[in-house]
Amino acid sequence: MGARAHISPLAPAPAELPPLAGVKLAVAHTGMRYARPDLMLALVEPGSTIAGVLTRSKTRSAPVDWCRANLSHGAARAIVVNAGNANAFTGKAGERAVKATAAAAARLLGCAPEDVYVASTGVIGEALDARPIIAALPGLVARARDDAWSDAARAIMTTDTFPKLATATARLDGRRVRISGFAKGSGMIAPDMATMLAFLFTDAALPQAILQTLLARAANSSFNCITVDGDTSTSDTVLCIATGAAGNRLDGATGRRLAGFAKALGTVTRELAQQVARDGEGAEKFIEITVTGAEDDGAARRIGLAIANSPLVKTAIAGEDANWGRIVMAVGKSGEAAERDRLSIRIGGISVARRGAVDPDYREDALKAHMQGREIAISVAVGVGRGRATVWSCDLTHRYIDINGSYRS
Amino acid sequence: MGARAHISPLAPAPAELPPLAGVKLAVAHTGMRYARPDLMLALVEPGSTIAGVLTRSKTRSAPVDWCRANLSHGAARAIVVNAGNANAFTGKAGERAVKATAAAAARLLGCAPEDVYVASTGVIGEALDARPIIAALPGLVARARDDAWSDAARAIMTTDTFPKLATATARLDGRRVRISGFAKGSGMIAPDMATMLAFLFTDAALPQAILQTLLARAANSSFNCITVDGDTSTSDTVLCIATGAAGNRLDGATGRRLAGFAKALGTVTRELAQQVARDGEGAEKFIEITVTGAEDDGAARRIGLAIANSPLVKTAIAGEDANWGRIVMAVGKSGEAAERDRLSIRIGGISVARRGAVDPDYREDALKAHMQGREIAISVAVGVGRGRATVWSCDLTHRYIDINGSYRS
Repeated sequence: MGARAHISPLAPAPAELPPLAGVKLAVAHTGMRYARPDLMLALVEPGSTIAGVLTRSKTRSAPVDWCRANLSHGAARAIVVNAGNANAFTGKAGERAVKATAAAAARLLGCAPEDVYVASTGVIGEALDARPIIAALPGLVARARDDAWSDAARAIMTTDTFPKLATATARLDGRRVRISGFAKGSGMIAPDMATMLAFLFTDAALPQAILQTLLARAANSSFNCITVDGDTSTSDTVLCIATGAAGNRLDGATGRRLAGFAKALGTVTRELAQQVARDGEGAEKFIEITVTGAEDDGAARRIGLAIANSPLVKTAIAGEDANWGRIVMAVGKSGEAAERDRLSIRIGGISVARRGAVDPDYREDALKAHMQGREIAISVAVGVGRGRATVWSCDLTHRYIDINGSYRS
Repeated sequence: MGARAHISPLAPAPAELPPLAGVKLAVAHTGMRYARPDLMLALVEPGSTIAGVLTRSKTRSAPVDWCRANLSHGAARAIVVNAGNANAFTGKAGERAVKATAAAAARLLGCAPEDVYVASTGVIGEALDARPIIAALPGLVARARDDAWSDAARAIMTTDTFPKLATATARLDGRRVRISGFAKGSGMIAPDMATMLAFLFTDAALPQAILQTLLARAANSSFNCITVDGDTSTSDTVLCIATGAAGNRLDGATGRRLAGFAKALGTVTRELAQQVARDGEGAEKFIEITVTGAEDDGAARRIGLAIANSPLVKTAIAGEDANWGRIVMAVGKSGEAAERDRLSIRIGGISVARRGAVDPDYREDALKAHMQGREIAISVAVGVGRGRATVWSCDLTHRYIDINGSYRS
């Protein structure tokens, strides 16, 4: 299957990222499934630390197992990613393919295989032939450049219609550090710890334990707050590498010193996560749902995701129908505490329902322009406590069914 | 919106039910939404007992609250059901509409308002005007007949494309008893305790406590095992009335004496539940998913529903694509214990995956005829314990989006 000509109407303007000290990227075409580059190598300088969050799926892929086993030692030299085959549910052969890939890259780089991280995305259950990947590695190492961010983001796409990139800077120990990353994801998006694939890099120097804490926190309010279809992937992987090239001190940084960096990391992960929702399969509208007054922040997120995952809410939005009764239904089915008779709903800033019934001043006509727009904003107050969360999603359209009725054909 | 001309290709042949001693039915047209009868009255003889299972939604409708409050006293004379307006999220006005309806029926029948059960189905969040219902009640009481089962099943439909009826007989205390029922449901189907609406009647004499136990057990392996879209309704209501007209003894019947009756009740509830799945909005294919080897029966059901609710599984089946990797994904996301490397999958009786990888003998061509059929059978063995369950669902097609992008317009 080639890249689709269709590009999501919610795509941001294309942008290249500036170089990031200590990181080089290259892409190649293995011919595994797509008529375009489908293999990505990221090389990082020796001494880089790495953190990651990985899917909790019970049927996780072989690369996810490999990354989880190696994250504990915390060093990284490379990430190898292929698109078109997820290497999931492939048994011992899948494990061997990952190990052979890591070993081949390690030989070229003169590092331990455990310093090579691997991710795969695509069809589940088909054997992955590692040979074309291994054959392409020497060329990738030779060609790696510091200005190939857009190419790298494109090479990891599957049904994505645009590459997803984001960058931000922060001050750390008086030095300016940068965080850049790219992600893919379009369907099978309901991350549980992480989303499909996202790779983040910073030139900051950060101990692995601190990087891990910061990444887990950022993922929780970004990648874990998006959903396209409620289907959690076997392959969800977010990796973040700190090259240390910015030259700040690498030590036990405290919360206050890290605040600027944590904020910038939050910006980059949130922008990438939102781009994944904007490229949800078949998406015509981007949906932001803010839930307040829940028992706690986790409950607010689960209520938000129940609304975002409801096929009835998503098809109503696709049909530009302000059918807010379905939002009430979704709150009710979430299983979280909610006071029906205190529930209030706003759409596009307009009060639709207040304290358990339609707002007497609500006129459906007032919502027409908002429902016809590309960005739908829903706020729900559930009247129980102080928990709050914002989640992002997209509508459910005919194109989703077209794409997924024939993904493999 | 009128009835759709389209009838689900999965509909069973139309059938009328025989009379059931002690039950009379009538329908009327209030003009509330549909250009066809939209109001149903079931009258039962004094002395009838009633049991019910109701949604656990936190945003349940006013009629659900009314039924739950009254079930404890266990007597019934009538059920009043309207279609087109769910009387959900309608605040105090919604409660008043239910009470006014019950009081008006009680006056006509010379019973307590608490003996009148009420259910509503349709749009959420719109005020329900009880006046046309109350005005129609005298005519309904006058016209009630013992041969109007099909009319009754039609009058409670919303986006349903065919009426759903089932009947079975059993021996109880040496007497032949009958169980008959009808149901509606087409979208917003992911019951939690019960499904949209189902009304069951038997001429057996049964104490309320026993009837409740039997009904809850039957609902658990029928209505609670279906899903169309994972969206749990505000209005799910299953009521079962025992008129006692068959003349068997009404006493503390033991498990063994009740076995035949319980089996027949299971048959009727399962047939109705399957008909709801067969009339899932836009359904082109009926899906039966059997899960074995789970930690317990509840875990097996949750795994089955995770598969049945996956938009990616449902769209693949709509596209006649044997994309079994998505079944692996759905097992993994269910959150239930599963051994990836022991997981086996059969589709249409053909072994697709064994012990964590594709079956080496599997050829996709062999599945082609099965995938092109109307009935798709999936079996999954998860390799953990002895729990098992069967769930029923339907595919996700363009018609679902057409119906739900414009349900209210």
